[in-house]
Amino acid sequence: MTNRSFTALQAAAAQVQDLAAAMSLLSWDQETYMPAGAIEARAGQLATLSGIHHRMLATELMPLAEALLQESGLSETERLNVEQLHRQLTRTLKLPEDLVQSLAAATAQAQHAWEQARAANSFAQFAPHLQHILELKQQEAECYGYAAERYDALLDAYEPGMTAAQLDVLFGDLQTALVPFLQKVQGCTQVDDSFLYQAIPQDAQWAFGLELLDKLGYDRKHGRQDISAHPFSIGIHPTDVRITTVVKEKDLTAMVYSTIHEFGHAYYELGLPAAFRGLPQGEACSLSIHESQSRIWENNLGRSLPFVQHWHRRMAGLYPDGLAGKDATQVFRALNRIAPSPIRIYADEVTYHLHIILRYRLERQLVAGTLAVADLPEAWNSTLKELLGIVPASDAEGVLQDVHWSIGALGYFPTYSLGSLYAAQFWAHASQAMPALEADIAAGNYEGFRQWLRTHIHSQGRLYDSETLCRRVTGEGLNAEYFLSYIERKFATVYDYPL
Amino acid sequence: MTNRSFTALQAAAAQVQDLAAAMSLLSWDQETYMPAGAIEARAGQLATLSGIHHRMLATELMPLAEALLQESGLSETERLNVEQLHRQLTRTLKLPEDLVQSLAAATAQAQHAWEQARAANSFAQFAPHLQHILELKQQEAECYGYAAERYDALLDAYEPGMTAAQLDVLFGDLQTALVPFLQKVQGCTQVDDSFLYQAIPQDAQWAFGLELLDKLGYDRKHGRQDISAHPFSIGIHPTDVRITTVVKEKDLTAMVYSTIHEFGHAYYELGLPAAFRGLPQGEACSLSIHESQSRIWENNLGRSLPFVQHWHRRMAGLYPDGLAGKDATQVFRALNRIAPSPIRIYADEVTYHLHIILRYRLERQLVAGTLAVADLPEAWNSTLKELLGIVPASDAEGVLQDVHWSIGALGYFPTYSLGSLYAAQFWAHASQAMPALEADIAAGNYEGFRQWLRTHIHSQGRLYDSETLCRRVTGEGLNAEYFLSYIERKFATVYDYPL
Repeated sequence: MTNRSFTALQAAAAQVQDLAAAMSLLSWDQETYMPAGAIEARAGQLATLSGIHHRMLATELMPLAEALLQESGLSETERLNVEQLHRQLTRTLKLPEDLVQSLAAATAQAQHAWEQARAANSFAQFAPHLQHILELKQQEAECYGYAAERYDALLDAYEPGMTAAQLDVLFGDLQTALVPFLQKVQGCTQVDDSFLYQAIPQDAQWAFGLELLDKLGYDRKHGRQDISAHPFSIGIHPTDVRITTVVKEKDLTAMVYSTIHEFGHAYYELGLPAAFRGLPQGEACSLSIHESQSRIWENNLGRSLPFVQHWHRRMAGLYPDGLAGKDATQVFRALNRIAPSPIRIYADEVTYHLHIILRYRLERQLVAGTLAVADLPEAWNSTLKELLGIVPASDAEGVLQDVHWSIGALGYFPTYSLGSLYAAQFWAHASQAMPALEADIAAGNYEGFRQWLRTHIHSQGRLYDSETLCRRVTGEGLNAEYFLSYIERKFATVYDYPL
Repeated sequence: MTNRSFTALQAAAAQVQDLAAAMSLLSWDQETYMPAGAIEARAGQLATLSGIHHRMLATELMPLAEALLQESGLSETERLNVEQLHRQLTRTLKLPEDLVQSLAAATAQAQHAWEQARAANSFAQFAPHLQHILELKQQEAECYGYAAERYDALLDAYEPGMTAAQLDVLFGDLQTALVPFLQKVQGCTQVDDSFLYQAIPQDAQWAFGLELLDKLGYDRKHGRQDISAHPFSIGIHPTDVRITTVVKEKDLTAMVYSTIHEFGHAYYELGLPAAFRGLPQGEACSLSIHESQSRIWENNLGRSLPFVQHWHRRMAGLYPDGLAGKDATQVFRALNRIAPSPIRIYADEVTYHLHIILRYRLERQLVAGTLAVADLPEAWNSTLKELLGIVPASDAEGVLQDVHWSIGALGYFPTYSLGSLYAAQFWAHASQAMPALEADIAAGNYEGFRQWLRTHIHSQGRLYDSETLCRRVTGEGLNAEYFLSYIERKFATVYDYPL
């Protein structure tokens, strides 16, 4: 039986969430259908709604949360919700409302400026916006407070409890393992993937994307797919979670894997308990767990041999020459080719982490004030050279490639790597729990896997932090060995090295 | 020089308007791209935001408006803004917040129920929703208060100052003139319009619609067109005003005239002074003036012979047989054929008013409580028989055809007829002021007409009521003779009767 005061909290949280839903729709629209000349107005609307939202947290949710902390008649789950919520609110309400509004307005404008700067290959055009956002984020970090360094305060917003000190160890280990692994596969016979990149009409690709989504289990009564410059997923409500994708005429894989990736995010949001929307249990656990859900579908499942075996014939039907006699294993190999690229979003599962390590190093210095915005392009290029042995052809393909900093997402990138590591650990555990998983995937049946995710991960919301959730699901905390052993085994089939 | 306190009011009004913008976007999305399964959630979001909006009017705008009423240093325009705003707020704030929220939630759901009921041709499915909305609207009318009858209170929301007693006179005169006029043209040689209704690919129609919009002067940097079940225009911000249209394979005219109509609405909203958004000067004058702007473009300009002369060749290019030798005058006649139809939105310029008179009679009785919801279909059919001599084939083509009552818009229909009358009066005045107007239209040049509208109507916002604005623009108040003489002259060319 639900505690009466807790029911009042649920109702209040749902109302605050209604306002957040409107902000999500404003953002979705900005990236999909908004007329270009409305950008200034949109920035103002987001700023105003952010301010109202912040005020509602302070005046409506916080008093209820404080009262419930003293309440003795709560169930265990209710108590966890209240404690987590109180922690979140205490943190969020350290920000003054004018800083929240300034950030909302600055990021809506900077995102637009970034798009134009990237199109013009002009870092100088973006630099003043980045400088402004950096200063606001530094203020934000100071408001939150931190023990060791300013960057930790920002990291904590995306990955509660995580610190740069912990990341140094984790990323250090990863770099130590991945650099020689990369050298090993570069010494193997190279994989040919050129046959994948043939022109396929955009209409046919789009239709295939929707078919794929239907089969994966995306209920389009509660979602939709659109085109945007950069694929994203956005939860407006547990009954309305949308994704976007890209369609590139000569690269079917761009559409396929961005679609599967965003499906993974959306399927997570669609599985969060609706009755708790606006409360911890109704929210995603953390960005790393969110990312684990996109990557487990995209990589562990979507780039696996059984998955390709199932879809091989259908995909071949899209190609003008039917993939010219390539069998499923050859397609699987091509889809998993490892090759350093300057662009993060095109990176393979191995070099991807080196892109993240680069961004982690640079943004940490920016936030600390030890790297100036003006020096960023040079630092970017030299770090990429160090880690991947390549330099980008332009700033558009280098320091300007990602949207994140323009939207104020400093401290966000590390969660991508953490997400991959969590995905590998969850995948190992799910495979052990469901011996038929590979056979199911080869048969195009994802129902068992979906249920496993729903039961063990989605239904838990944000009741626990990432590490605790991982422990509850897999019996141990985050352990990078799962990822390392996953790539060691998987790429043996791709590159034909002895295990 | 702007008064300092007035500047504070402008800033506050703009923030309230940001919230209204979010509500507009939620509505636009609901009608265009929202996944069907999100309807319950959307109703809740709109209800929550309506409540917050209502509270902001009370706590943020009203105190500023009250203080400024006492201020002596205002300019004439500032004073008008403050007085109008205070009047509006006083009226709006008579509604308790829970009624505002209930209406928002009930109408979002009823609109959905209406769509389904219409598709199923089942009035019974819609009746309980209509009953609920009717009761809420009756409560709303009681909150506002009225002198003569309850309906006046609702009418006043759309057309400030208008009463049923005034409409009785106006619509009585109209009916007295139009019924014999209809008989006269029905006695003339009939017009053939069958050649207009040939299959034209939807893509080609869509492209033509956009071309038309560009030529009319719709700046798509600040607007966009989409498809929806029922065409509408929606102003999210003076820099973001969107329209929707329909495309019917066998009826190019449906797309063309809904596009021109919605353009007229949108062009008005795009011309409202952005600096005053959220204040009377930044708002549309009234629904009748809004409708005058759509109809002046759709009918007075868009169904005129010079307009058809300009577009005739381009339109013929869309038809499989190139309109088979029909000249511009024959197309003009076909586009203006008068024929009683059960469907309002397909009605010609003459019978249209009889559709409105029907709705006015029935909704007035519903609001008064002298007509029961259960008896509505029968009343609809018998009144249509009386006024137009026809009966609808089904409720879907009868009482269920319009969205208005489902969204709580009782008292709205009369503004359509008023809009036509204002349009004819403005048109007569513009034609007199610009002797080259017909020649410009025949040349596809609308710039002079656009500027005339901007100067005389759009820039005035809601500083004056409809009647006063009309007087300032044309030198006299609303006079139905302009409309009657417009149709008398126009249809002489269509039906070849002596003038």
